[in-house]
Amino acid sequence: MLPRPAEIIIPSPENLVIKTAGYAAASGTTPLAPFSFDRRDPGAYDVQIEILFCGVCHSDLHTARAEWGGTMFPIVPGHEIVGRVVRVGDHVGTFREGDLVGVGCMVDSCQSCSACAEGEEQYCEKGMVGTYNGIEKETGSPTRGGYSERIVVNEKFVLRIPDGMDPAGAAPLLCAGITTYSPLRHWKVGPGQKVGVVGLGGLGHMGVKLAHAMGAHVVLFTTSPDKRDDALRLGADEVVVSKDEEAMAAHAGTFHFILNTVAAAHNLDAFLTLLRRDGTMTLVGAPAHPHPSPGVFNLIMQRRSLAGSLIGGIAETQEMLDFCAAHGIVSDIEIIPIQQINEAYDRMEKGDVRYRFVIDLASLKREVAAAA
Amino acid sequence: MLPRPAEIIIPSPENLVIKTAGYAAASGTTPLAPFSFDRRDPGAYDVQIEILFCGVCHSDLHTARAEWGGTMFPIVPGHEIVGRVVRVGDHVGTFREGDLVGVGCMVDSCQSCSACAEGEEQYCEKGMVGTYNGIEKETGSPTRGGYSERIVVNEKFVLRIPDGMDPAGAAPLLCAGITTYSPLRHWKVGPGQKVGVVGLGGLGHMGVKLAHAMGAHVVLFTTSPDKRDDALRLGADEVVVSKDEEAMAAHAGTFHFILNTVAAAHNLDAFLTLLRRDGTMTLVGAPAHPHPSPGVFNLIMQRRSLAGSLIGGIAETQEMLDFCAAHGIVSDIEIIPIQQINEAYDRMEKGDVRYRFVIDLASLKREVAAAA
Repeated sequence: MLPRPAEIIIPSPENLVIKTAGYAAASGTTPLAPFSFDRRDPGAYDVQIEILFCGVCHSDLHTARAEWGGTMFPIVPGHEIVGRVVRVGDHVGTFREGDLVGVGCMVDSCQSCSACAEGEEQYCEKGMVGTYNGIEKETGSPTRGGYSERIVVNEKFVLRIPDGMDPAGAAPLLCAGITTYSPLRHWKVGPGQKVGVVGLGGLGHMGVKLAHAMGAHVVLFTTSPDKRDDALRLGADEVVVSKDEEAMAAHAGTFHFILNTVAAAHNLDAFLTLLRRDGTMTLVGAPAHPHPSPGVFNLIMQRRSLAGSLIGGIAETQEMLDFCAAHGIVSDIEIIPIQQINEAYDRMEKGDVRYRFVIDLASLKREVAAAA
Repeated sequence: MLPRPAEIIIPSPENLVIKTAGYAAASGTTPLAPFSFDRRDPGAYDVQIEILFCGVCHSDLHTARAEWGGTMFPIVPGHEIVGRVVRVGDHVGTFREGDLVGVGCMVDSCQSCSACAEGEEQYCEKGMVGTYNGIEKETGSPTRGGYSERIVVNEKFVLRIPDGMDPAGAAPLLCAGITTYSPLRHWKVGPGQKVGVVGLGGLGHMGVKLAHAMGAHVVLFTTSPDKRDDALRLGADEVVVSKDEEAMAAHAGTFHFILNTVAAAHNLDAFLTLLRRDGTMTLVGAPAHPHPSPGVFNLIMQRRSLAGSLIGGIAETQEMLDFCAAHGIVSDIEIIPIQQINEAYDRMEKGDVRYRFVIDLASLKREVAAAA
């Protein structure tokens, strides 16, 4: 068991009253380590959730290592949260004690701008409040994520995990699932369409499952020939090794939509040229370094679009969870104790996970109990 | 008068029978000079047009100087053609002698693929045949453009110039007009929308006129503060000097659509960040060197799109001409004799034209008559 370093325990304002154990990075070059902090007492519209599982997203790593800039340390990552409701505020109508619920990338937004009014809280014009590395309106303190025992969230940002869904496999749906579901829906993917998914990682494996369930003909692009069998098992109709120029050329101009999940800089033109007229490639991975500039002619010649997409709204996230339940979809995961989070980051960085690490927070409970 | 160099007169296959004078570049580093070639005798579905005016497009310069690669020399540029029908094939039903007509960037396409079937011949899956630097199916010879006395074109690729429209001012509509009209229509620009036009050149000044006529609130972005009055006169509601960071920031996140007409590499992020949620910036200028790579976060954060668009279909080009006639729109032009084409290229390259050079082909007729 790791010692809990006293120097990264921050003082608690008086209105933060629930002592909570978690794991935090103290700086961009420090491993994650035990960290104690306070959660606010649930307000009238809040739900208190004891966390059971939390998925490990590439964004966690980018943020913990300050690769995107703007990280407020100490940072408690984690925004693929599944847990059990243990307490609800007086005016909470949707949830009650014992419910199995989820929390994704957001815990708040202005709830009054046009984006919020249209159920697109992720694009809130005032800025949505991230589940970690945001500022909690109720306390003015940084938000802290799901690498922790519990979380307190306004019920509007709490999702219901459908009955019978595996709670550990459900966790990554809260980010990887909605991040791929939302653009597939927005660009109207369905039967009769040829859809590409670039990259078979945490996002990509969800993209394959979801696009397949939506009825599209799915082609998975990967640089790893050894992922072929997995991709076919997950629902891909075809697998193309993207370094194989001949195989790529055979697909030129044929895709209605390409979901690009790769979070490392790469040649976008190789995929843009695969789009048919009016096709769109949507980026959901945000690399730390820019992609080589895409060729303007490749956009002009078939009126192609290069777009981006950020997670999805709360209502759409619930729709995604229900869609997954109806189609028997969860994430393919490897469960780890929280004490292995730093090794998991190293493996994730090398692409050595099929396809998402999920922290079993029982490991944290045991650590806390042993320390008590 | 320039001598007609014998060495760039190419031999004529037997089925090319109409001697035609024009101006050609013999190489990417040679000024345009008189050049004699043959046009095919009109077939049953062809229209023979005596050219009155031809606009001077940036593509002419890029192609003549081989800046995009792939130029077949000698090259006779020109794809903003207005002329008078002097002869029609036996099965031509749409046009007759004396009609004032136009020819734009295409003179043929496969006419059977889905793009052609949907009236998007510019995106023909077999490749449309350019008015110059293409291969004429009837003869196997390179197509030659409007810097010439006459042209022979299948009637399906001939446009009707509306009654009362100035033929010289109409010429640039055949490329600059449709290149800006088509994306404005495709992305559904209209009343209640805030639309940006980047660059006030041949394309940009048409974009301002057309977006204004469509009822949008139009903001013109320019690097030249001295174009402000012109932009307002042309129909812009606001003018922003794009180097003024404060003025740019005031428009952040507010545009439904931005039409980017600049054909030189520049910072796309400065404009992408001005788009609101689900906004699109469409590139219609193709720079010889790539733009700096746009930031992925700028696409992701408001689900923005970066797109391209190529001219427009034949039916849409006729629609554009009729729209322009209904709104009293033609291009702002400076008429030149063909003997000044090289000086015009030099001036165009410096942005020294308001806003399109148009060649008066009477100057070529006089030259031919004098040489006879």
